[in-house]
Amino acid sequence: MRRFFKVEALAKLQKILGSGKIKTQPEELFVYGYDATAGLKNQMPLAVVFPESTEEVVEIVKWANEYKIPLYPRGSGTNLSGGTVPTAKGVVVELNRLNKILEIDLDNLTATVEPGVIINDLNEAVKPYGLIYPPDPGTVTTATMGGSVAECSGGLRGLKYGVTKHYIMGVEAVIGTGELLKFGGKTVKNVTGYDLPALMVGSEGTLGIITKIIVKLIPAPVAKKSFLAVFNSIDDAGNAIAEIIKNRVIPATLEIMDQTTIRTVEKFKNIGLPVDAQAILLVETDGYPEQVEMEAKIIRQVLEKNRGEVSEAKNDEEREKLWEARRAALPALAQVSPTTVLEDATVPRSQVPAMLKRLKEISEKYNLTIGTFGHAGDGNLHPTILTDETNREEWQRVEKAVEEIFKAALELGGTLSGEHGIGMAKNRFLLWEMGEAGVNLLKRLKLAFDPNNILNPGKMA
Amino acid sequence: MRRFFKVEALAKLQKILGSGKIKTQPEELFVYGYDATAGLKNQMPLAVVFPESTEEVVEIVKWANEYKIPLYPRGSGTNLSGGTVPTAKGVVVELNRLNKILEIDLDNLTATVEPGVIINDLNEAVKPYGLIYPPDPGTVTTATMGGSVAECSGGLRGLKYGVTKHYIMGVEAVIGTGELLKFGGKTVKNVTGYDLPALMVGSEGTLGIITKIIVKLIPAPVAKKSFLAVFNSIDDAGNAIAEIIKNRVIPATLEIMDQTTIRTVEKFKNIGLPVDAQAILLVETDGYPEQVEMEAKIIRQVLEKNRGEVSEAKNDEEREKLWEARRAALPALAQVSPTTVLEDATVPRSQVPAMLKRLKEISEKYNLTIGTFGHAGDGNLHPTILTDETNREEWQRVEKAVEEIFKAALELGGTLSGEHGIGMAKNRFLLWEMGEAGVNLLKRLKLAFDPNNILNPGKMA
Repeated sequence: MRRFFKVEALAKLQKILGSGKIKTQPEELFVYGYDATAGLKNQMPLAVVFPESTEEVVEIVKWANEYKIPLYPRGSGTNLSGGTVPTAKGVVVELNRLNKILEIDLDNLTATVEPGVIINDLNEAVKPYGLIYPPDPGTVTTATMGGSVAECSGGLRGLKYGVTKHYIMGVEAVIGTGELLKFGGKTVKNVTGYDLPALMVGSEGTLGIITKIIVKLIPAPVAKKSFLAVFNSIDDAGNAIAEIIKNRVIPATLEIMDQTTIRTVEKFKNIGLPVDAQAILLVETDGYPEQVEMEAKIIRQVLEKNRGEVSEAKNDEEREKLWEARRAALPALAQVSPTTVLEDATVPRSQVPAMLKRLKEISEKYNLTIGTFGHAGDGNLHPTILTDETNREEWQRVEKAVEEIFKAALELGGTLSGEHGIGMAKNRFLLWEMGEAGVNLLKRLKLAFDPNNILNPGKMA
Repeated sequence: MRRFFKVEALAKLQKILGSGKIKTQPEELFVYGYDATAGLKNQMPLAVVFPESTEEVVEIVKWANEYKIPLYPRGSGTNLSGGTVPTAKGVVVELNRLNKILEIDLDNLTATVEPGVIINDLNEAVKPYGLIYPPDPGTVTTATMGGSVAECSGGLRGLKYGVTKHYIMGVEAVIGTGELLKFGGKTVKNVTGYDLPALMVGSEGTLGIITKIIVKLIPAPVAKKSFLAVFNSIDDAGNAIAEIIKNRVIPATLEIMDQTTIRTVEKFKNIGLPVDAQAILLVETDGYPEQVEMEAKIIRQVLEKNRGEVSEAKNDEEREKLWEARRAALPALAQVSPTTVLEDATVPRSQVPAMLKRLKEISEKYNLTIGTFGHAGDGNLHPTILTDETNREEWQRVEKAVEEIFKAALELGGTLSGEHGIGMAKNRFLLWEMGEAGVNLLKRLKLAFDPNNILNPGKMA
């Protein structure tokens, strides 16, 4: 980019936004070349802008079209596929100042929020009314609603409650042309036009910059029961998972941790986990008391039948302790080595035992430490490779192992990504799953929204 | 179309398909100029084809691209927005021979079906396993899965269980280019590429011809309670609806019938409905026995507080009788006059009382008989105009009334269509809801899938 052009463009942007809404100094820009993803080539942006209104977002996108300068929308930057990392000289659009909960509508059980609202803040706001917004990615206390819609965040409750896409009823967005559009609304049913709210969810900032979101809320469950089951065989754990669902019990959460993860968490937290176990399962059922009783009975039976050693949380404090272990999984694994490669290749839940076996083989083949934990109930495992990206020889083995993990997931009828997104971390593998015709369709679709390829270029397809 | 060209094109098509899979005689084609929609200009197709494999569908779409002849995908033709009616000389693709249930997967709680499977046949097939496929449009015993995915069918259980889009995990389709693509799959979580399964649901046959569908199944509820409540004021009924939800009870069904509908059903069926009532509500809660008890108590309290006279179905036979009245609504109304215009303008549920008021005003203003019934719990009302399309003067009033119904729904924060689709019945109103930029986006999106505008042209946008 020629220097004069850049100076002129940024001066114009400065003029559009007024003071205090743009940063251009290298030391201010540095962090915006990163997000939570490991091992990516990063690129510092030209500037970061902080719009404070929808109108400013519109002006920014029009400006970008005029100068053909790419925009990179960003929330809290917690995503794990490089979704917010610039790929060329452009401007990061940081949406955290658009952070109002605009409405909680108790008649329609909806909330309307701006993109910068933190997911957990929405849940705190609706709690007094006995309501919840179920999607709960691990980053629920830091991630924004806008980012979580753009990435279609998953989390621990996907099995019973679904993921972000199941709760988004309406989206207002500035598409790549600079046009402000509203998709969907507060009606439960809506078949007017294509399902554009659904298309925006998981679009990774490539179709539009989200400026408003209408979400569905649901009544909070009134009762809960939580179990920890210890297994000496990974097959037993896998069979227990499949059998619970086969008994038509859909737990709220059904999580697994393998031996590597258990040992690392125990070293890190020292909370008395069974370090010789091959796997532990954490299972929680929620709903009405009687239903929870019935489901809990079946869950316990299945776990014990599959040789699980079962303990039940007797109160909220004990339940908290169980989840503390689960929540510690990623931070604990991340402490072991300089670089943590957290994957989310996902399989149909019946293939979880087969996938666990493949992960073990891959870890042995490439002589790598892979800790696996995750949402076993929905087939969304998180194999986590503990490595050091500055060790070139090992990093090459990591890259090969990652490729093999994806191939295994696809062979088992799964998908490249269950909840982390494609971004720039997985777009080179997209052909394997979608084929050339599929990838070309994604590209044409992108251009229908964003003909000048302004929004988050180089991501997804 | 020049005669020679037509003869050549059809001869080629005949050759591709072999014998017994194509009809070209006018008396065979006549019915394919219609579907269940009233008051449309119809157009007889050049031919109807009956593919018996996915490969044949691919060949048909390639043939259509070669000759630039439009295709009109069709299931049972039960849709109410002209979605299956030809708009120009083209070929109807009747998918009812692709009618196999390919798999019921009890481990993953999914079923894989071909598009010609009747919705109810799927439900009968999964019933022995204690599972259900919840979407239940009124046409459940005749409509096909393919048609119901293409139109995103709604139905009586939308409030609690959602609609078709909430159950479609994967779709295989031949897009307008003739390419066979697979979107989604059996994993609960999938963020690979844009959410193309969601985009296919409700795309009204304009993006692709669906050849395979993977649906989510859920455990059948084990208990039910059903109530009939009689109201002397439409406001009381409306307030009761809002208050049930506000009490965080989400009934499985929450249906309304107004006085016109009640009287017509009673005349038709003679089952003892209260003909002097202003409205009746039918409410059913389902789930685990204890939950059903708790919810039933709240429902009864709210209904009585709002001056509803409540009776409860004591057994399945009595429940059947309640639903018989509801199911008779449309057939009864349809018997009264030569033409029945069934609308589905939809509002946020809190606006149901306001919408009912507006419907009454519109019926008086245009001196028309409008019976209203429908899914009050999800704001999806069915104002039904009883008329005669051969009476030109009255038909003009009907058209004005319909426009005003749409305007009212939009003013109340609603949408043009909750579950019937846009098709060719409502596309001239699309601008009101989506604006010019929105409609242009729909058109660009369509072209990304179907650059030659082969698939169901003239529908939706």
